[in-house]
Amino acid sequence: MRVELLNVGDELLRGDIFNGNAGWLGRRLTEAGVEVVRGVVVPDDTETIVAALREALERADAVIVTGGLGGTSDDVTRDALARAAGVALRRDPALEARLRERAVSRGVPLRESALRMADVPEGARRLPNPAGTAPGLRVVLPGGVAYAVPGVPEEMRAIVDEHVLPELAGTPVAARVLRTATVWESVVAARLAPVEALPGVRLAYYPSPGEVRVRITGTAEDRVAEAAALARELLGGSVYAEEDLDLDRVVHRLLAERNATVAVAESLTGGLLGAELTGMPGSSATFLGGVVAYATPLKHSLLGVPADLLAAHGAVHPDVAAAMATGVRERLGASYGLAVTGVAGPDPQDGQPVGTVHVAVAETGGSATVRSVRLPVAGDGERARGPIRRMTVVHALDLLRRHLLTLDSSESWAVTAGNREEPG
Amino acid sequence: MRVELLNVGDELLRGDIFNGNAGWLGRRLTEAGVEVVRGVVVPDDTETIVAALREALERADAVIVTGGLGGTSDDVTRDALARAAGVALRRDPALEARLRERAVSRGVPLRESALRMADVPEGARRLPNPAGTAPGLRVVLPGGVAYAVPGVPEEMRAIVDEHVLPELAGTPVAARVLRTATVWESVVAARLAPVEALPGVRLAYYPSPGEVRVRITGTAEDRVAEAAALARELLGGSVYAEEDLDLDRVVHRLLAERNATVAVAESLTGGLLGAELTGMPGSSATFLGGVVAYATPLKHSLLGVPADLLAAHGAVHPDVAAAMATGVRERLGASYGLAVTGVAGPDPQDGQPVGTVHVAVAETGGSATVRSVRLPVAGDGERARGPIRRMTVVHALDLLRRHLLTLDSSESWAVTAGNREEPG
Repeated sequence: MRVELLNVGDELLRGDIFNGNAGWLGRRLTEAGVEVVRGVVVPDDTETIVAALREALERADAVIVTGGLGGTSDDVTRDALARAAGVALRRDPALEARLRERAVSRGVPLRESALRMADVPEGARRLPNPAGTAPGLRVVLPGGVAYAVPGVPEEMRAIVDEHVLPELAGTPVAARVLRTATVWESVVAARLAPVEALPGVRLAYYPSPGEVRVRITGTAEDRVAEAAALARELLGGSVYAEEDLDLDRVVHRLLAERNATVAVAESLTGGLLGAELTGMPGSSATFLGGVVAYATPLKHSLLGVPADLLAAHGAVHPDVAAAMATGVRERLGASYGLAVTGVAGPDPQDGQPVGTVHVAVAETGGSATVRSVRLPVAGDGERARGPIRRMTVVHALDLLRRHLLTLDSSESWAVTAGNREEPG
Repeated sequence: MRVELLNVGDELLRGDIFNGNAGWLGRRLTEAGVEVVRGVVVPDDTETIVAALREALERADAVIVTGGLGGTSDDVTRDALARAAGVALRRDPALEARLRERAVSRGVPLRESALRMADVPEGARRLPNPAGTAPGLRVVLPGGVAYAVPGVPEEMRAIVDEHVLPELAGTPVAARVLRTATVWESVVAARLAPVEALPGVRLAYYPSPGEVRVRITGTAEDRVAEAAALARELLGGSVYAEEDLDLDRVVHRLLAERNATVAVAESLTGGLLGAELTGMPGSSATFLGGVVAYATPLKHSLLGVPADLLAAHGAVHPDVAAAMATGVRERLGASYGLAVTGVAGPDPQDGQPVGTVHVAVAETGGSATVRSVRLPVAGDGERARGPIRRMTVVHALDLLRRHLLTLDSSESWAVTAGNREEPG
């Protein structure tokens, strides 16, 4: 089953509203084993929609249309469907009565244009809308079937899940996801060459700063499982999840399993590391708090980093990271202290170039483990700031993860350190 | 000038990656007076891309293609452009040399497929990429011009802004932007009814958690300026910028003008407030650091919030916010202390419902000013967490802004407090 998406709306083309419906539909259909062959966005114009419907059904078996089903004059999807089907629009007495009843019960006047929502192309099937007023419509056109749903995300999702997907669903594709941190996409891809060579599976890489998500798909469950197992072996400790789970949740789970807590000391990230560790509900079970020592003297006064160390080497030094981790752990009474210091740019700091980052983890009664890395600087300094800060968070979380799992952490860092390649 | 967008990538159709590039391009082009007539997403398939290019240039004067310019085997946009132009691909010696140099300097082997990034359709113009490796390409095709840019957002944006928009820009529409914080979209729209009624201008509202961006456009510069002046007057102190400037930068500027600094104390935001204040280069001039006192006892031990206050009222109380602001200001030696405490959810805390938030600002020798607000909870608790945390940051920054400008802050808060409306 091949499906095309047709999203209707001037506001989508102008970027006033981001087209989240296309992404949701793409993922939902793919999961249901339906191939999405194209996505098209067109303005609120009847002729254009009619043409797009015809083109879509030359390529695909069905088209899902979102938007243009409301009750204002620029909602023309119904007219376009009728014209494409070569039929007339008929006002549905039951729908009309419902619209009038609603208006009366709310004590608001009914706009004449709102009655357009009761218009249905002859022969079309109404798809009940559990979340709103305008029903979806199923219309048989030359070449295939069109499913039209409102553009309001909640209504669109409800109608698609209840009435559209059950009709379209094919053989679900078998899929596995592996998520890795602190190893570049090209390194991941190089290691997975033997998996790429396996018959019947397809690999896709989705990089984000500091991370790569690998998706393995195929039609045969056992082949995909076998490929995933090989990939897992080849990637080793850099894989932090074998499902679609974020790194912060993995770290939270590892800490919770050990009844352990963490406190963070931040410099260049300004609070991002703490923000990441508190994004999920229930994070208070493992996250105690943090200190953002942005100004250098605060690293001494708030975290106990030796003043002579700061005077001799500045704030960007492995020993400073170690002292920050130890200091925050002790002061906040956490099982683990996690610290980052470095240069986000745009200018070098204390003689260190932009992208120089040291992360450290300290534990009760133990010394601190430090990893130093030179992160890639993309574009000019100001633009690189965001990715560098984000990558620093990923590297810190991954260091704690490897520490908790007693995994070798030199592997990823050896790859990373000195590697100036773009992160994907 | 009519432009069509063509986004290439299987991952977009499957919804693995959200097509943010289309939204960004739509907004950018619209602002530049260019009409976006259609948006199309196609898979990584040469034939399909060639067909889509031809169709696009039957409808539009130019097409902007994103994606498929990387160095892996599924990056086929270059091949498609060459085929659509009826020319061959030629390896560019300068680009190839640059790729080889990069690989050597990094000490990594150069994959043969990565050299594809040096391939250029004959006659195409390279569009330098300031943020990455693969250049953009400008190719003249039958029917119009194709601009191909990488799918990586930073690279796409840089090349479009520097090389594509200057060529495409039409008669710019006169435009003014007003940015407001802590007032709901419906309130902004109601206040601006007299501006809506003016002839020759069009208003658009772009809400985000805690903020509304108002854009006033028209063809006559003087009418737009007049409308903006009236809007400014009607919106009063809730306008934090009359240009496209983020709230954190406005606060930074106000602090810098006063040679003042700020330190933050955070609870539910976990570090987001500090992260926001350090997002921009040069933030160290005004931001000293912060304390994330996520666990309640840390509010006492790290910030000096009276233990009996915490015992009597819990952590979510106006007096706790005030004590946090005062405590962090004193301990970090800043001109101002800014603090937030509240309930991000999904569960109530200390008897306070989700969305209860107190923000406070303290200054040298002065008592703290506290504002309390009940933020709207959208969707189920877990989904509401992100927006509540984001709105809390906006409310805190806006309180400091109003404090620095000695603006009445009850106005926005009176509107906000008890108002359970969705933020947009």
